[in-house]
Amino acid sequence: MDERIRAYVLSHRDQALRDLERLCNQPSVSAQHLGLEECALLAKAMLEEAGFTVRLFSVPGGAPVVYAEQRGRSPRAVLIYDHYDVQPPEPLELWQSSPFTLTIRDGRAYGRGVSDDKGCFAARLNAVKAWRAVYGVLPCTVRWVLEGEEEIGSPHLGGWVAEHRELLQAEGCIWEGGGVNWAGHPTITLGLKGIAYVELVARGGNRDVHSSYGAVVPNPAWRLVWALSTIKGPGERVRIRGFYDRVRRPTRQEREALRLLPEEDQHLAESLGLKLFVKGVRGYAFRRRLYFEPSCSICGIVGGYTGPGTKTIVPAEARAKVDFRLVPDQRPEEVVALLREHLRTHGFGDIEVVEHPGGSAPARTPLDSPWVRLVAECARDAYGTTPVLVPTMPGSGPMCYFTGLGLPVAMAAGTGHPDNRIHAPNENIRLEDYEKAILHMASVLEALGR
Amino acid sequence: MDERIRAYVLSHRDQALRDLERLCNQPSVSAQHLGLEECALLAKAMLEEAGFTVRLFSVPGGAPVVYAEQRGRSPRAVLIYDHYDVQPPEPLELWQSSPFTLTIRDGRAYGRGVSDDKGCFAARLNAVKAWRAVYGVLPCTVRWVLEGEEEIGSPHLGGWVAEHRELLQAEGCIWEGGGVNWAGHPTITLGLKGIAYVELVARGGNRDVHSSYGAVVPNPAWRLVWALSTIKGPGERVRIRGFYDRVRRPTRQEREALRLLPEEDQHLAESLGLKLFVKGVRGYAFRRRLYFEPSCSICGIVGGYTGPGTKTIVPAEARAKVDFRLVPDQRPEEVVALLREHLRTHGFGDIEVVEHPGGSAPARTPLDSPWVRLVAECARDAYGTTPVLVPTMPGSGPMCYFTGLGLPVAMAAGTGHPDNRIHAPNENIRLEDYEKAILHMASVLEALGR
Repeated sequence: MDERIRAYVLSHRDQALRDLERLCNQPSVSAQHLGLEECALLAKAMLEEAGFTVRLFSVPGGAPVVYAEQRGRSPRAVLIYDHYDVQPPEPLELWQSSPFTLTIRDGRAYGRGVSDDKGCFAARLNAVKAWRAVYGVLPCTVRWVLEGEEEIGSPHLGGWVAEHRELLQAEGCIWEGGGVNWAGHPTITLGLKGIAYVELVARGGNRDVHSSYGAVVPNPAWRLVWALSTIKGPGERVRIRGFYDRVRRPTRQEREALRLLPEEDQHLAESLGLKLFVKGVRGYAFRRRLYFEPSCSICGIVGGYTGPGTKTIVPAEARAKVDFRLVPDQRPEEVVALLREHLRTHGFGDIEVVEHPGGSAPARTPLDSPWVRLVAECARDAYGTTPVLVPTMPGSGPMCYFTGLGLPVAMAAGTGHPDNRIHAPNENIRLEDYEKAILHMASVLEALGR
Repeated sequence: MDERIRAYVLSHRDQALRDLERLCNQPSVSAQHLGLEECALLAKAMLEEAGFTVRLFSVPGGAPVVYAEQRGRSPRAVLIYDHYDVQPPEPLELWQSSPFTLTIRDGRAYGRGVSDDKGCFAARLNAVKAWRAVYGVLPCTVRWVLEGEEEIGSPHLGGWVAEHRELLQAEGCIWEGGGVNWAGHPTITLGLKGIAYVELVARGGNRDVHSSYGAVVPNPAWRLVWALSTIKGPGERVRIRGFYDRVRRPTRQEREALRLLPEEDQHLAESLGLKLFVKGVRGYAFRRRLYFEPSCSICGIVGGYTGPGTKTIVPAEARAKVDFRLVPDQRPEEVVALLREHLRTHGFGDIEVVEHPGGSAPARTPLDSPWVRLVAECARDAYGTTPVLVPTMPGSGPMCYFTGLGLPVAMAAGTGHPDNRIHAPNENIRLEDYEKAILHMASVLEALGR
């Protein structure tokens, strides 16, 4: 990569850390409606200082979307997605330093949101700053979307994206996250699963009844159990008709990439105290299920008396929270419709299906996309080692709104490391990863300017 | 019946009410360990005043058993079972008068325990008093057991009975409860269902896991659902092998008695807001299921996240509280053993079965027993109308310990009426029912002395 840019980055570590500190010291907890407006304004100010034209889009009932644009020498453009909100810092007593006071010790920066996702934002911003400081202008055009509701499921982002497609034109998108794996290789992740989250509600009498009436009074806990057992059995295959119809078989390249990923099942099994995973999968079969198969989980179930000891009742109501994790090309709204149809045709039309907002479609960018090739080459350049291509994560998120525009999306040029403790006390990033993320982003800008 | 006895009872209403007041004004809430010792001593004093020799048996970790005996002219004996403990009075704000201050209004006496079961005890005691006052001696021998833990499942009574069989010899037993139905006919009830109460515990990882791992991490909520659905399906028949083997077919007489019972399904359906009962049963089919069929109820189920909104986890644990209501000759300990075997053979040996104490066997006295005939004739005598024979109640209780001794047991000579609000605020009895209960008991004593 450009040697002057590299030299600038390496000699301006303090400046980059000060940016990180400004961001992390501003609390911005979406779940607690804390400091979101303030953090949006701070991000706007920092982007403007780095030469961006910035617009704040207020979202009725939500946190503002920050949109920034800066034209470069080339009209080729990259779109960056980040979020300025963070998880709640609790439990506070487990933090070794204050969560909203960025603290450096032993080569790491500690603070709530420093990894997820303020470190990424600050790193990418410092890549822009380096180009402007050295050459006065960016090699390519940069467009940036920062939302403030990622940690609560991005309830308004899909609507905003649909209304502002014209602002989002680019050759590809750099997604929040990215970083290195345990072995120190940079990872480039190309997809997320989708999610549909429903609550099944079974109702019996208008109040709990003494269980001596159990022989005659309909029991909603039983009905819920029976309905659930028609949805998935011990064979672990979802029995909803049509559920798998849109599941796209992973490409040979995707399977090959999955094969190359490091083993993780043994470590996870030990950590959870498990002897076996579902269907006994290990190694590649474990990863294949985890990354490429849809799933259906009971996240919670409750009905009747759940306290200590005994209480002899037929409950009035029973509920189950169920999530479906979806793979391309399943669609959350279609899965919920199929579920309703399934319950009706299996004699459980009395069970109410409450769909929770915040569902999202799966997203996946092909491994052989030119954008992925470009981002991977820049990673090799910045990190000096071969990047690992990850076809998808098992988690979910708002990536679908961007792939839905036809954009290739790569989660890369981030500050992540498996030991970052995101969402947990003592969230941190390693300073070396922060620097590498700046270099990777600077290299992507350079590549796009060629 | 003996006219001098009848005249004495009718002219000593105030004395009988004062006894009721003494008992009801002494709180004795077993669930709250409140006043039990005091109430046992009060019952002992009142029994002694009525000529009984009384022994207090202390129960390690429990409330004392009061045992009383009084020999009469005839060595023929009746055993009476009552309990001196009551349900908690809460919610207090719904009482129109203080729960522990007996209050008379509009022909009823109000107070916690006045129906269940202090009214029965006081009525029966006043039958004894009448005989002693008029003739100086009882016509027959009376043995009496009062326990103080009925409302918490009689955890120590079975053991006490087994150790004191020699004190319990009698021709038959008068059980707590009894009274009149809505139509004003006295009821004589001859059985209770048994009960076994278990908790099924399914365990997964050692902590909740993000549900993006739902495709690979075993989900105990699913396992619990699957295990439960093997125990009973929508057909409502319990699928545990051997579960029905000991179910004794009701006799022709029992079925005939059931046919004569008043309809109750429509009233219950309206009260609960239900369109249909299990399997659509109505009328006789409803009663047949309710009284003669065993049942299996999920009384409570819980696992994972049960709060508002969404949380995406695979739970570490899920639990279900399940009760089995048993009919003769099922045995609670055998049912639990069959359940364990069922889970093992159906691949759910990983699910723990925790058996709760307080299980009890079913109890049923034959309708054609001489004891039943005697009690029924005395009821006709006391109430001036035909009694209704009820083969069994759908509820459970410690009656099995006494039928287990070979004693015929009849729930009769009590102060009950369907509007007594037992276990609820404003528990009450009608003064006319109190008087009738005294007369019925007095008549039973007379009949035994012939």
